[in-house]
This record gives sequence, structure tokens and C-alpha cells, in this order.
Amino acid sequence: MTMTPSPSDRFTFGLWTIGWTGTDPFGTPTRADLDPVEGMRKLAELGAYGVTFHDNDLVPFDATPQERDLILKNFTNALAETGLKAPMVTTNLFTHPVFKDGGFTSNDRSVRRFALRKVLRNIDLAAELGAETFVMWGGREGSEYDGSKDFAAAFERMKEGVDTVAGYVKDKGYGLRLAIEPKPNEPRGDIFLPTIGHALAFISQLEHGDIVGLNPETGHEQMAGLNFTHGIAQALWSGKLFHIDLNGQKSIKFDQDLVFGHGDLTSAFFTVDLLENGFPNGGPRYEGPRHFDYKPSRTEGYPGVWESAKANMDMYLLLKERAAAFRADSEVQEAMAYAGIGELAEPTLAAGETVGDFLADAASFETFDAAAAAERDFGFVKLNQLALEHLMGAR
Amino acid sequence: MTMTPSPSDRFTFGLWTIGWTGTDPFGTPTRADLDPVEGMRKLAELGAYGVTFHDNDLVPFDATPQERDLILKNFTNALAETGLKAPMVTTNLFTHPVFKDGGFTSNDRSVRRFALRKVLRNIDLAAELGAETFVMWGGREGSEYDGSKDFAAAFERMKEGVDTVAGYVKDKGYGLRLAIEPKPNEPRGDIFLPTIGHALAFISQLEHGDIVGLNPETGHEQMAGLNFTHGIAQALWSGKLFHIDLNGQKSIKFDQDLVFGHGDLTSAFFTVDLLENGFPNGGPRYEGPRHFDYKPSRTEGYPGVWESAKANMDMYLLLKERAAAFRADSEVQEAMAYAGIGELAEPTLAAGETVGDFLADAASFETFDAAAAAERDFGFVKLNQLALEHLMGAR
Amino acid sequence: MTMTPSPSDRFTFGLWTIGWTGTDPFGTPTRADLDPVEGMRKLAELGAYGVTFHDNDLVPFDATPQERDLILKNFTNALAETGLKAPMVTTNLFTHPVFKDGGFTSNDRSVRRFALRKVLRNIDLAAELGAETFVMWGGREGSEYDGSKDFAAAFERMKEGVDTVAGYVKDKGYGLRLAIEPKPNEPRGDIFLPTIGHALAFISQLEHGDIVGLNPETGHEQMAGLNFTHGIAQALWSGKLFHIDLNGQKSIKFDQDLVFGHGDLTSAFFTVDLLENGFPNGGPRYEGPRHFDYKPSRTEGYPGVWESAKANMDMYLLLKERAAAFRADSEVQEAMAYAGIGELAEPTLAAGETVGDFLADAASFETFDAAAAAERDFGFVKLNQLALEHLMGAR
Amino acid sequence: MTMTPSPSDRFTFGLWTIGWTGTDPFGTPTRADLDPVEGMRKLAELGAYGVTFHDNDLVPFDATPQERDLILKNFTNALAETGLKAPMVTTNLFTHPVFKDGGFTSNDRSVRRFALRKVLRNIDLAAELGAETFVMWGGREGSEYDGSKDFAAAFERMKEGVDTVAGYVKDKGYGLRLAIEPKPNEPRGDIFLPTIGHALAFISQLEHGDIVGLNPETGHEQMAGLNFTHGIAQALWSGKLFHIDLNGQKSIKFDQDLVFGHGDLTSAFFTVDLLENGFPNGGPRYEGPRHFDYKPSRTEGYPGVWESAKANMDMYLLLKERAAAFRADSEVQEAMAYAGIGELAEPTLAAGETVGDFLADAASFETFDAAAAAERDFGFVKLNQLALEHLMGAR
Repeated sequence: MTMTPSPSDRFTFGLWTIGWTGTDPFGTPTRADLDPVEGMRKLAELGAYGVTFHDNDLVPFDATPQERDLILKNFTNALAETGLKAPMVTTNLFTHPVFKDGGFTSNDRSVRRFALRKVLRNIDLAAELGAETFVMWGGREGSEYDGSKDFAAAFERMKEGVDTVAGYVKDKGYGLRLAIEPKPNEPRGDIFLPTIGHALAFISQLEHGDIVGLNPETGHEQMAGLNFTHGIAQALWSGKLFHIDLNGQKSIKFDQDLVFGHGDLTSAFFTVDLLENGFPNGGPRYEGPRHFDYKPSRTEGYPGVWESAKANMDMYLLLKERAAAFRADSEVQEAMAYAGIGELAEPTLAAGETVGDFLADAASFETFDAAAAAERDFGFVKLNQLALEHLMGAR
Repeated sequence: MTMTPSPSDRFTFGLWTIGWTGTDPFGTPTRADLDPVEGMRKLAELGAYGVTFHDNDLVPFDATPQERDLILKNFTNALAETGLKAPMVTTNLFTHPVFKDGGFTSNDRSVRRFALRKVLRNIDLAAELGAETFVMWGGREGSEYDGSKDFAAAFERMKEGVDTVAGYVKDKGYGLRLAIEPKPNEPRGDIFLPTIGHALAFISQLEHGDIVGLNPETGHEQMAGLNFTHGIAQALWSGKLFHIDLNGQKSIKFDQDLVFGHGDLTSAFFTVDLLENGFPNGGPRYEGPRHFDYKPSRTEGYPGVWESAKANMDMYLLLKERAAAFRADSEVQEAMAYAGIGELAEPTLAAGETVGDFLADAASFETFDAAAAAERDFGFVKLNQLALEHLMGAR
Repeated sequence: MTMTPSPSDRFTFGLWTIGWTGTDPFGTPTRADLDPVEGMRKLAELGAYGVTFHDNDLVPFDATPQERDLILKNFTNALAETGLKAPMVTTNLFTHPVFKDGGFTSNDRSVRRFALRKVLRNIDLAAELGAETFVMWGGREGSEYDGSKDFAAAFERMKEGVDTVAGYVKDKGYGLRLAIEPKPNEPRGDIFLPTIGHALAFISQLEHGDIVGLNPETGHEQMAGLNFTHGIAQALWSGKLFHIDLNGQKSIKFDQDLVFGHGDLTSAFFTVDLLENGFPNGGPRYEGPRHFDYKPSRTEGYPGVWESAKANMDMYLLLKERAAAFRADSEVQEAMAYAGIGELAEPTLAAGETVGDFLADAASFETFDAAAAAERDFGFVKLNQLALEHLMGAR
Repeated sequence: MTMTPSPSDRFTFGLWTIGWTGTDPFGTPTRADLDPVEGMRKLAELGAYGVTFHDNDLVPFDATPQERDLILKNFTNALAETGLKAPMVTTNLFTHPVFKDGGFTSNDRSVRRFALRKVLRNIDLAAELGAETFVMWGGREGSEYDGSKDFAAAFERMKEGVDTVAGYVKDKGYGLRLAIEPKPNEPRGDIFLPTIGHALAFISQLEHGDIVGLNPETGHEQMAGLNFTHGIAQALWSGKLFHIDLNGQKSIKFDQDLVFGHGDLTSAFFTVDLLENGFPNGGPRYEGPRHFDYKPSRTEGYPGVWESAKANMDMYLLLKERAAAFRADSEVQEAMAYAGIGELAEPTLAAGETVGDFLADAASFETFDAAAAAERDFGFVKLNQLALEHLMGAR
């Protein structure tokens, strides 16, 4: 394998990914803290394009203004030194115990005010650093018990919060777009906006929804047993795929945050195929960074941390190569035609056909031979086998 | 238990529910066919308000126009005889093999045309019968393999189909609203519009979305591990809860279609509480029928079929009684206040407060004592225990 | 509700349950540390029978021998003061980073030796404190990647470890039995012995399996979508239900450790019915403590901690009352007879009937009217409805 | 790809797989019936080794003795003509409505007697055809409601049934072994013996358990979120992997029965690696046929049926090639050594070391530097990346 990641691939990593030291619900850290600047140097060396961060990944929750300034100065120096970009910034509204019942939807109004102020402050920083996207993961917005919340009020507060932030971005003239990150559960029993669909639906209710889109995460959709590629396709089709979190998850269970491709490999192939090659018949394309939001397994020391960071990019590049070959293969193209992939792009009504015309077309109903049409062999299994053989480098 | 279902409870049943004879993926029917008219008489006797049906629940797919007319005449006679209403009608786009790759999104355009015609025809019938709601379950719209479909084209075709139907309803001046029924999988490996959220998001992209809403089903959301009450709350908040399918499901597995309350009982309690008592601080209410979409277990003969139909209504009425007592209990009200249920209805920004004012309010951030606020005891477990004690009739 | 928990109910709690301060994968503690002795006083006051603990719940991992002695002295004093028992003890082989790849099955032999010594040391303590049961939860025994382990070697090492411990118990003449606690995943991607079944199967391969049984946990089985009551029934039938961990879980997701009954309430009803009333036609009974292994929700302060501890016992007692009424109800007994509950206890072959006799009995096959027999109405839905009405206190 | 399946690969197919015509819970057949003899010719042509069948795959439930004889004669002729073997036979105790509450554990004793006779009759046929394995899938043995069954009685009846069959096999001197096939749910809400573990545990309670083992199915374990390779590893380690059903499943949902490798591809790689290359440090090996139990997708006509049959074998052979290369790669071997894969095969206690010696070894505990040991980098992610690169043909 000779593919080497380079900044032109636009691979980005959260500082919290390589910096995760291994605390989990049943164990304490297995790795020493990582200096963010050291992490940035290493990522640059591996070929990454940029880093992303939560405010508190860099600046401790309780830092003084002086400490904050110094840390941010070191960070911007490190960006300059390494050539890394910071295209996405996000705010931590989940670690501190004050957010135990949420940020924008905490039943405690003083917490909601604090959370909103924390976000607004971080928006300024994001703009200052030239970020394009501001991610909002409402991991604590939710409940364990249905009686704990007035759900309509919760949606109202979420709307108030996001609209306030988006309005602020517009007022300030910042070049930022907001991206909501859905997740079905963990740490809350049920999280509001649990899937791509729920978040898209929420955005459609916003006043400033035009600058609000999505940051879907592979594993989060798969934790609900949903098809990630279907999900990002709907987001793309809705013009709302603003950012993406790539990682790996094995079936429905706790949030694993494995390396991209180390979960459902076949799904990862089709995700990359969509991101790189677009819909077969054209349509909206994703243009943002390829962002990895994963955790280096807790069994690994720092050698393993860097191997895992590299593995994300290697998997992506390998899948990209395989997806390109898949699309270019004439046998695949024949199988796609046989399966009707192109036919689905034809409108059901003919150009200029009115409903009246359509109702008068006996061939479409009265004389339609359903039994004969039912015999069509779509060849989906063969097409899938071709895809898998490309994925496996066997063609 | 002395509660007796009556038409004023607006309980409705699909003809396909009591009429399910027990075919499943591994077995043939365990019950003889049920004459729909006989089923209607029995439902009326049990206290139901109405029946709902797919076209092919009444009229066989291959019926001649004469057979169709006779069947429909018998059906309308039976409505008159029993006093039952037919408030919801739906079209079967899944049983016949011609729909094996979907109806509105089949890769085969001739199938899409046939499906759309089949729906339009049934819209006329629904209007003629005075139905209020026309449900669309796209159970075959989906795929087993990500390569089988152009997803953007699929969403375009779905939009074309639904908008054509909705436009037709408007053109005809019918008093119908359309209600999309989401489901994550089964019979397809992945179904498009897998959850309440995805369907709401899709509707926001429609031209005629104003008359398109949702028909969520308890078990369908639970098959994705999602919280049904959260889901219908978001649909209500979005003004889109047009109809509802109540049933039971135990965890993430095949679609069980158990009696309402025979799946996740606690969730059923909160569902009824929301439907009957609304959000704690007010807001949109559900006004439609309480529709049961369940299957009488295959182990039952017809005595068990009628016991199961009755059980749906008995469970609902019992839960309604318990939910009313829950809301009326002063200890519950105190626990709700303690938990901040009312506080969540207060906007995060004060009336008239600008973002500028808010940023200048040091109490909300600079001098906010997060550690102190973090100590708040929300009392959610106690509140849940009170709910369960009401559910269990123990208070 | 007038039922008050008392020591005769044999309710026990892990010190780690009330002592959990709220660290989760995305957040730091929300509660201050709890002094174990204070916790014991409070549990005694609430009516508990005993406490259970991991070595490191009491004695920090790095405690000196002197610190350890003092802590244990204070603990035994507290037992004496409060009258609480310590019927179960367990060893923590998961929190310290040295166990990141497991204890008995770590790929690192020095870790395996350390883990085994840590357990043997704690066995002595358990015996000294008069515990009856020694629980072994191998939460870190497993893998994220199938290539990380030689599975046969892993099972051999697990067997070596458990047999060494069981052999030691016998050699010392301790009155202890070992109880393995299965779990499917979390914190490892896949844990060895993921269910009740796998653990029972493993025990059947042991040299000293006679003193090794199970400690199943409600939520752990439900995390794999399995029926907990079915599971403990198989353990009972196999003579291996040595201990039990009761708690609550909602569907397949991360390990929630809710209050017992606050997850799947209907399942909890049938669990209590089995534990308290036994199999309908008799058979092995569970005689051990009713042990709660739950976590007070992170949103709660200490008032909520004690409310939640109490809620476990209240739910159990309430379900016990309802299950007793269910069994005593003559209508239930009729429905059980109608359903053939008793008939299942009759052997399929008659007393003394040989296989030869059976093969010669034409009535059982050659002249058996399968179609007629297929018509039997089992009445399972009605029986379930009766159970739910008892659960809801509605009869 | 030049690998061509041949009988020496020992690939077998159930007649019910290629013969599945597409009935599912929501649809009628999409394919015409397949003549079993024609199917056998086609399988032979594709390179299969043998076929397997349920009694009623060949002989209709209601066939007369004369019809049965003729069908079986045609079948044996077809075996002779095609050279196919029939190494496994099984009995259908699930399709006919008489089995709606199970076969061996139906609450109806007359059904239990009929089911047992049906199996005994089929045992004779299996022996006559020279089958080695008799599979028992108890798909209807279970319940929807916990109150429907006396679980202890159910396990007793299951034991009585299996022991009667196994005893009969022994008495007759047949060369058959029985293989139980676990499944968690579908068609029943919960099936008894839901996983590999539960079935192994059950077998350990049998009188004639020595000739009873397992027939695990890929998708059945994955429907419970369990790791299939872990599961068959435990079965192998227990000496009980008698037969295997290979197919594909995507996450936790209804039983998909996809082509092998078309579900979780990475898991399939490790399954083949175990079946073909054994445990890394040696141990029990699987020697039986590679049996595919899948369903050709309902969207396919017969061209797609044969493509899908071929795809199972192609995927297996491709994965076998990749797994061989993985094991042979010196970089992989180094990574395995680095990860401690071989070290796990070393007993935890030294040869001849007594527990007394062990307790006296301060290096294993008293002076063990846990913090230092915790720093070990296991390199599991890198090893997994190497496996995936081999799977993808990228090394």
C-alpha cells in the first residue's frame, strides 16, 4: 500500500480523540495526558489537514483569563508551526456536572443561561480562528425517564438556544455555519434529536435554519441500527451535510468510537463511495473535511495511539481507491444498468405529463401486467458481490 | 375493572389486525379467513369507534370492477349497520410481488407508475368514505444493499410521489390529510424514512407538505431503540401528529405488533399520558383516533383474537385512568415542581432581553457558581417512582 | 402503599451502587464521595439486610497493609453496629489500568498472575467475613477485535483461573460458592461469557464446577435483547442460580443500571413472580439475597440517592404483592389451565412407555389429526392481560 | 478471481435456501416454485458438495406414503446423478400450524407426541441417506409472554425430547450426531436456547449429551448482538461444533439470511480464519461441511438465485485466501507476538507450581509493579489494521 495521507485529503482529527486517555465507565486512564501541541505536531507529521476541538479540550473549565490567553496563544502558534487548520470548533456542554441535566434544555434555567453564554463565547473564538463549522452535540440534552421533562418545552428551549446562537453568528457577520450532531443515547437514556432525521426535522423549525445543518457520526446512527449511508444521503439531499464524523461501531451497543472502517467495513465502503463519487446520477456533493471522531483503544499506549490515527486515514484512502475502481468497472456499470440504478433518476411522470394525462394512461394501470413486471430480476445480489469484490481488491 | 370502551373513546382497528391469520416467515396460517363484515360487527360490539383498511384488505388485488363494487357496497352497508366510522384508509404497496423493490421508489419506472395510480385510485375511495386521513407506509421503499439504489434519486421519486398525491387531494378538494408511517426495517433491510425524524425532515422538503404529516407506530420506533413518546412529542411540536398506530414491541427485534401495553408498559403509560393530558406546560394536542395496529398472537384462535382486540382498549383505558390520577396527585405536582418541569417552560432569555443584555449579565456566566449549581438534586428517580406507583395503582 | 422493607426480605446493595458518584464516559462526578460506613447506616435505616462490595470499594488499590487493616476494622464494626450482613464479596479486576486487557485472560501473563493473586487474597477476606457467595465479573475479559486473542487459550486461562480459585476454596474448607456474572459487552467490545448460557456452558467444563454457579444481572441479559426471566429459569433448572443482580435497563444500549422495575416493568413482574412463587408446577427455587446492582441517576444529589435505594425495595415488594395476587386469582388459574401450563409438566412419553410402544401408537402420529389440533386456542393473550391487570393493581 | 468452488471445499446448501420463493411477513412469493431435483443439478454444476433438507422441503406435510416413496426415490436418484451428498438432514417442526406453540415444548401434549414421532421418523431417513448430522432448530419452542409457559417444565420436555431422539439413535446404532441450532427470537418473541451458550449449557444436562452438539448460525448470534466467532470458538473449545450455518446479517433486527460475507464482512473474515486456520496456538478444529443457510433476496429472479448461491462460495474462498495470507505474513506474526497472542497460551501458573508456591511468589503480587505493567502497548489496533488490509487484498 503506497497511499500516503496528505493535507489535500483534508483529514481532520478532534484533539479529544488522540488525547483520550482511556477513562471509561469501569476504569481509570491507561495513558498519561497528551500535550495538545505535541499531538498537533504528530498529526501534521502523519499527513493530517487540521484539528478540531471543544473549548475544554484546550482550556480547562476553571482556567483564569490569563491561563486561557496563554493556552490559545500556544495553540495558534502550533497551528502556524504545523500548518494545520482548525476548520471546526465545538463547545463542551457535557463534562462538567453542572450540565448533568443538559445545557440548552436543562430544567434549571440558570444552567441554560450559563450554557448559552459558554457557547456564544466559543463562537467568537471559532470565528477568530477562522473555523467554518461550529458543531453542537447535545449529549446531555435528554432524559432517563419520560416524566423528567416537558418535551414541548424542551424543543422550544433547544430552538431558542440554537436560534440565538445562529442569530448571533449572523449579527456578527461570522462566516460560520452550525452543525448539529445527533445521537440516540449515552450518556442520557434517551437523547433529544436522536438521529439524522430528527435533527433535520428540528432544523426545519428554526428561524435561522439556513445556516444550521448536520454533523452526523457513523457510530451514532449505527447505535440505533440505522444505515449511516442512507442517513447522510438524506442530509445531502436536504442540503444539510455540513460536516461529518467518521468512525467505527459494531452493532447496537455502547458508543465504541472505533477507527473508521474497523466497525462495519462494507458500510464504510459505501460511505466513502458516496462522499468521493457522489450519487450515481449526480446531485449534491459533500465538500467538507473528512473528520475522524474516534477513540484509540484503551489497550494501546502512545505507539498504538498513532497507529490508530494513521489507520483512520489509511482505511479511508484504501476505500477511496476501491470505490473509484468500483465505479470505473464496466461490468459494474452493466450491473447498475441491469438493476435500474439509472432508471430511478427518471421522473415517474413524463415531462409535461399532467395528473389528468396520467390517470388516462391505461398502460400504467388498467392494462399493466403486474404479474409479468413482478418477474424482473434486479440483480442486486450480483451488484453487491461486485462491490464486495472491489472492496476486497479481488477484481 | 369497570371501564367499558365506547365509541366516544375513538378506538379504531385496522381490518388487517383482527384479520391476520398468522402467516409468518416460518409458518402458514393458524386461523381461517375472517369475513371483514363479521369482524366489523364484532368490533362494534366490543365498543370500537371505527375501522381502517388497506385497499386489498377488502378488495383482492385481482378483483374485477364488478367484484370491487359489490365488496365496497357490502362494506358501506356494514358501516351503516354497525355505526362504525372509517376515518383512515391506506393503500397496500407491499404484498404483491410487483412491489418487491418498492412502489414510489422502485428502480422500475413502470412499477412506480402503477403504484402511484393505485394510490390515486384509493384516494378517491378514501374521500368517498369520508376518511380524514390517508396513511402511506412505504414498507418496501428501501434496500438490502447500499449499491442497489441511487439514494438522491430515491428521495426525489418519493417526493414526486407524495407531492403528486397531495396535489391531487388539493385539486379535488378532498378533506383528506396524508400521514406517512416510518419504519426502520422489515421487510427491507433498511427502509427509507426509517424514523419519525426522517419522515418529518422529508415532509419539510415537500411542495404540498402542509397537508402531509405522520402516522407513527409504537413498535416501529422501538425497533430502532428509540423512545416512542419522545418521537410523537417532536411530531406534535412540529404540528404533524396526524394519526397514531398503537401497539406493543419488546426491545429491538422483528416487528412484533403485540397488543398495546403488552410491550413496554411504562412507555405506554407515558404515551397515554401525553395523548390524554398533553404536555405538562401546555402546547399542541393530539385529536385523532386511537388506532391499534397489532397482530393477535398466532397461538390464538378466534376467541383469543377478540380477547386481544379487547385487551388493546382495556389497556388504554386503564392507562388513561392511571395517567389522570398521576397528574392530579399533589405529591406528584410537588415532585414535578422540584424537578423543574415547569421551569423548563420559561424562556432562557428574559422577556425583552437582547443578546447584548444577556452578554452583559455577569450573573449568567462570569460570576455564575457552576459548582454550586451542579449540586441541585433533580429528584427524577422519585418522580419516576411516583409515576410507576400510579401506573401500578399503588397510590 | 404500606409495605416497609425489612431485613427478612433479604435486600442487599453493593457499596458501589449508592457510592457511585456519577463518572460516565462523558462526564466527571456529580456527587461527593460517600463514606462507606455512612452508606451502611443509611441502608440499615431503610430496611436493607446487607451490603456487598468489591475489595477496592472499601480498600483503595494502593492502600498500605496498615490502612487496609484499619478500613476493614471500621467496616466490621459498622456491620456489628448496623446489623447488616455481608453475604457476597467480589474482586475488582477492571478499574486499574493494569487490567485493560483483562485479568484472568490478559495476554500479559504477569497481569494474569497478579489478578489471580488479588482474587485469592480477597477470597480469604470473604471467608473471614462469613460471605456465602463470591462473585466474579470478568468485565475486562474480552476483546474489541477478533484478532486480539486466541479464543481457545482465553477459555483455557479462564478455566485455569476459576478452577484455581474454586480449588483453593475447597482446600481451605471455606463455605463459599463462586458465582460468575455474564455480560455481553461494555467495557470491552465483546466480553467472554456474554450471557447466562455461555457462563453455564463454561461451568460445565470446569473441574470444580460443583461450587461454581451464576450471578445473572437483569440489564446484562437485556443488553443482548434476551429475556431475563427465561435466563434465570435456565440457571435455576441447571441448579446454578447462586446469586442475582436486580436492576433496570431499557432496550439494547449501554449499561444503564436503573432502579429495579424502572426498566422493563413487565419483565420485572415475571422475574419477581419466579423468584417468589417458583415455577408453576414446582421445581428448584432461588433462596439467596435479593441483590440490587444499580446506579442512582447522575442527576440526583444524595436525597435522590436514598430515594433510589428505597425505590428498588419498594418496587420489589409491590411486585411481590401483585405476583402473589396473580397466582391466587381463580380466574388466572383457569386461564393457566386453559393455556396448558400444567399440561407441559406431563412427560411426553407416558410412564413406562418405551420408544417401541410410542412408535406403535398410531394415535400419536399416523391417525393424529394435525389440522384439528392446530385449532387449539391457547389463550395466551388473555392470560397476559390478566397478569398485566394484576401488575397494575386493577383486579 | 480464479478460484472455482469444487466438492473438495465441502460447500453444502439447504434445499430450502435456493428454494425459498420470497414469502415474508408482508408479501407473497416473488418466484415460482423450484423443483428440488433441478436445484440439485444447478448446485452440482456450481461446484457444491452436497445438499441438506427438512423433511417437508422434499415431502409435503400431507403426502401419502406412496407419494413420499416416489419423492425420496427421485431424490436419491438425483444424488446419484449429480454426485451430491446429503450430509445433514433436519425436521420441520415450525411451518404447520399445529406447531404454533412449539414441538417438543408445546403446552399441548398431543402435539409434543406428534412432533417427537415426526423427528424419529426422519431420523430413520437421515440414517438411510447416510447423513452424519441431524440438526434440530426449535424455532417455535418459546413464548411471547412470560406467563405462557412453565419454564422448568419446558426445559424438562426439551430434555426428554432430545434424549429420546439421541437414545433412539444409539439404540439403532446409527452413525448420526444431533446438532442443536440456537436462535434468540423470530418467529417466537423469545426462543428457548437463544444462543450458542444456552444450547451448550442445555446439552451439559442431557443423558445422551455425548452425541449432541451445535449447529450455530452466523446471523442468529448476531441478532443478539453477539460475536459469532467468539461463539463458535466456545463451541469448538467445548468439543461441540458439529455443524455450521454460514450466512449474513446486518446488526440487530429481523433474521435477514443474507449471503455469507454480505452482512458483517470483517466478522466473516475471522470466522473463516478460525474455520480454516484454527486457533493461533492450536486446539480443536472444525471438520464438517461449510453449510450455507441463506435466502436469495426477494428482489431476484432465478438468475439472481444462482448468482447468490455462487456468491456464498466465492466469498468463502476469497476470505479463505485472505486469511491464509494473513497468517503467513511475517509482519502479522510479529504483531501477534507483540500483542501477546502466543503468551496467552502459557498457563498462568508455572508447570508444577502449586497454589502454595504461587502465594509465596512476591513477584506476582506484593512487589508487582502494576503501574508499570499497565503501560504495555498491546498493538491491537495495528494488528486489526493488518487483518483488514489482508481482507482487502491490500498487502
